[in-house]
Amino acid sequence: MLSKNQIKFIRSLHQKKFRVAHQLFIVEGEKNVIETIRSNHPIADLYFTNKFHQKYADLLDLRQLPYTIVSEEQLKLAGTLSSNDAALLIAPISPQKPRPLKPGEYVLVLDDIRDPGNLGTILRIADWYRINQIIASPTCVDVYNPKVISSCKGSYLRVHYVVHSLEDILQKASTTGFPILGTFPQGENIHQYTFPLKGGYIVLGNESQGIQNSLLPYFDQQLSIPRFGEAESLNVAMACAIVCDNLRRQLS
Amino acid sequence: MLSKNQIKFIRSLHQKKFRVAHQLFIVEGEKNVIETIRSNHPIADLYFTNKFHQKYADLLDLRQLPYTIVSEEQLKLAGTLSSNDAALLIAPISPQKPRPLKPGEYVLVLDDIRDPGNLGTILRIADWYRINQIIASPTCVDVYNPKVISSCKGSYLRVHYVVHSLEDILQKASTTGFPILGTFPQGENIHQYTFPLKGGYIVLGNESQGIQNSLLPYFDQQLSIPRFGEAESLNVAMACAIVCDNLRRQLS
Repeated sequence: MLSKNQIKFIRSLHQKKFRVAHQLFIVEGEKNVIETIRSNHPIADLYFTNKFHQKYADLLDLRQLPYTIVSEEQLKLAGTLSSNDAALLIAPISPQKPRPLKPGEYVLVLDDIRDPGNLGTILRIADWYRINQIIASPTCVDVYNPKVISSCKGSYLRVHYVVHSLEDILQKASTTGFPILGTFPQGENIHQYTFPLKGGYIVLGNESQGIQNSLLPYFDQQLSIPRFGEAESLNVAMACAIVCDNLRRQLS
Repeated sequence: MLSKNQIKFIRSLHQKKFRVAHQLFIVEGEKNVIETIRSNHPIADLYFTNKFHQKYADLLDLRQLPYTIVSEEQLKLAGTLSSNDAALLIAPISPQKPRPLKPGEYVLVLDDIRDPGNLGTILRIADWYRINQIIASPTCVDVYNPKVISSCKGSYLRVHYVVHSLEDILQKASTTGFPILGTFPQGENIHQYTFPLKGGYIVLGNESQGIQNSLLPYFDQQLSIPRFGEAESLNVAMACAIVCDNLRRQLS
């Protein structure tokens, strides 16, 4: 059973300012909660229904996490999902630092991605294509936004996600010899491009503005996804999927 | 100025049953409305603000469409967008029939795509990669859903979109010699696959169930997008983008 104050507290975590203040975020729904429990991610609080308890009794016994049994109604009140008959957990945020690239490693760099659905999808694509690190500008939507966590399908558990000044990252990167690539309307055709064996940084830009001008001096290579029809543009998450697929068909 | 009854009528078109009853749908926002006006798509009613009128006076004079000047407040009341300072139009629905494939032509076949954002994105991808026809099962989300129209960024104007029984389509297709391809968890690696020069049908399945079992006998080729990391699956719109990119890098 959740008290009014507990519900109020969980609801406060729907907002970034309270997530930042408490350094906590929420994970909702059967699949996402189970995946988080199965991982080694720390968990602060765990709430689930009797039904969920019965279904996962073995796993829950094994992990010995403290928990509270709640009703579907309470999960709905506390969380952001329109229906949730399973579980919700609260987990601590642990801000990450950029990791130096290993030889052959590619990372994604996100410049001002604003839509939570896009960010969630980009995390999932990175996870599919074994991109182990994402560096995001501080202007990107918060990765702990419940919509990002829901739409990334557990990929937040596997991708090292860093918020950092992109100028700083790209300036340092340019001294390491790892190439900096980005998608632009008029770049080299990605179907003909040979990705450097060395690894590098792949920058994706804002949904409507693309990559900001102040970053242009850092690029070693501008790439384009060739257009065969009439659509004006591709969504940034689509572009991410296509770039990663073109990368991995060459350098698996 | 819109009357209460006009607003009520436009609002009814948010729902599929009224769109079907009246054979009308709505297009909202500056860019989408302008693109529809510029195309040859028929328009039943046109509502816009003074600001929009001034900005596009030349185009509006040229097309000589009857219109009504409305306030932002009224656009918001009548439409689905949280803000719209520009325009909304009502256009007639004209149900389309399947077109026979031309030599070398590929079409997308959608089996039970439920999410409007996914369908809008798939239309945009088809349009980018010059896939001129989409055949959708009657169980797919309505293409005239306002979220689909908004998210496809005008691509509904350029892609021939047909709702039809997939059994019927694939049964007939199998007699024409055009191959039927689909994405499956255990198909041939799409990076190694050679798309037939002849053209064909590319089937994409439901967000959680994939392609329904009853269609399996029709497939000439099962394809897979290779996974390099840990994500359990790719979203269907991502899969669509990657399949189309792999197709067009071979057969532009």
